[in-house]
Amino acid sequence: MKRSERIVAMTHHFKENPRKLISLPYFVDSFQAAKSSVSEDIDIIDEMFQSLGIGRIETTAGASGGVRYIPDFNHNQSRQFIDRLIHVLEDSKRILPGGYVYMSDVLGDYNYIREIGKVFGAAFKDVDLDYIVTVATKGIPLAYAVAEVLNVPVVIIRRDPKVTEGSTVSINYVSGSSRKIQTMALAKRSIQEDSNVLLIDDFMKAGGTIKGMENLMQEFNATVKGIAVLAEAEDEDEERRVEDYVSLLKIQEVNERSGAIKVVTGNYFNS
Amino acid sequence: MKRSERIVAMTHHFKENPRKLISLPYFVDSFQAAKSSVSEDIDIIDEMFQSLGIGRIETTAGASGGVRYIPDFNHNQSRQFIDRLIHVLEDSKRILPGGYVYMSDVLGDYNYIREIGKVFGAAFKDVDLDYIVTVATKGIPLAYAVAEVLNVPVVIIRRDPKVTEGSTVSINYVSGSSRKIQTMALAKRSIQEDSNVLLIDDFMKAGGTIKGMENLMQEFNATVKGIAVLAEAEDEDEERRVEDYVSLLKIQEVNERSGAIKVVTGNYFNS
Repeated sequence: MKRSERIVAMTHHFKENPRKLISLPYFVDSFQAAKSSVSEDIDIIDEMFQSLGIGRIETTAGASGGVRYIPDFNHNQSRQFIDRLIHVLEDSKRILPGGYVYMSDVLGDYNYIREIGKVFGAAFKDVDLDYIVTVATKGIPLAYAVAEVLNVPVVIIRRDPKVTEGSTVSINYVSGSSRKIQTMALAKRSIQEDSNVLLIDDFMKAGGTIKGMENLMQEFNATVKGIAVLAEAEDEDEERRVEDYVSLLKIQEVNERSGAIKVVTGNYFNS
Repeated sequence: MKRSERIVAMTHHFKENPRKLISLPYFVDSFQAAKSSVSEDIDIIDEMFQSLGIGRIETTAGASGGVRYIPDFNHNQSRQFIDRLIHVLEDSKRILPGGYVYMSDVLGDYNYIREIGKVFGAAFKDVDLDYIVTVATKGIPLAYAVAEVLNVPVVIIRRDPKVTEGSTVSINYVSGSSRKIQTMALAKRSIQEDSNVLLIDDFMKAGGTIKGMENLMQEFNATVKGIAVLAEAEDEDEERRVEDYVSLLKIQEVNERSGAIKVVTGNYFNS
């Protein structure tokens, strides 16, 4: 097999298996190539991935060693993508009764979701995680997109326990905006004790839902290592109950009467 | 830039943009390479993608022409993956009260979800689709995984309409197994009139939920072009209400007392 052919196959393999350790003999056997050729191939791919700003190939020496693709997404690319997203969202047609912003089309489009996953993946790339935890419904695609980059399983908290989940742990929490008491439930066997988790959701206002997720995680003795929200909005009525989080967007103004809508970058881009 | 470097960048680009038309001048300009070199690169990638069984690069001639990566997943690979999945599922520890099978860990693992997306993507690759429609909660990751392969947006039907969706159309339907009347709602602006849709869900027993989705699609004048379910189970009490569907798995027996669980391949593998 020629170098160019091996490079197609290896680039494909790395992109399908982010963060997974691949032994050099695996490639050597697959391609019937010399170890030195495979090493050179990997150097080329590593350099190109770095120059494309999409991560790097990490090499671990020794008997249990190998290579691993660590995806990344440089800050410039992240910022450009979020600026494009802001442009899409700042459309008065998106304003819904109650001052909400219609985002379901954006959240339904994998071309956006994939990029959001990359941005959050880069934001939390150095955090040691066992699970990514979200709550049904709209956080789910975001959770999977980040999970794909970080190679970590997703756990979905539900509003309604289902028979197909087995025994569940449930808590009540006060929704920030409506002040209503709501329930969250999570299957008992979905998280192992003493795990490290990343919480993710599409939207945060007063932070009641995230606070509820934090409380539920305590029931599982899990440590919340990070909180990711796609969009945050200011809540005039009360103080935010969540302090330490990463947001990509901030909805600053939604005026139903004038049709004005102002979206800016979230705190991930402050510095 | 050398051929091997261009090939890394192009393989990456194709894999990030399935089914999207890319003009040759885009590559020529990006790499400052001759058109003939870029064409040769594409031929190498095309041949290698085909020999890996992951699809092909389609070339369209003419002024509005270009190249497009059409992902595929050959039947052998699909079958091998499903056999592995069956092995994971046939574990008596997965049996839940009521004869259900715990699958949330599988559905939470992107390494499985990605492959399921490829299998369904191959099953429906020649169907002209505008949307992939699922119903909260567990069908969601499957829908996105297929959407990634087919480059089609996802639309999520909810059990509970939310303020962040705007006006919704809702219907009542009878859940097959519990005989309870339930509600499904979908945001009015989420589907355009006269669209072609693929319905997808994780599990089908009597087919009540899928039937409900079909009815809701009628309200949007949408045409159901296909139905995909990951796992089907036989319902002894009543006839299935859905006829034409593709399933990857069939749960044949779940015996709570003996702990016996038998899973076989679904109808996609009949023939």
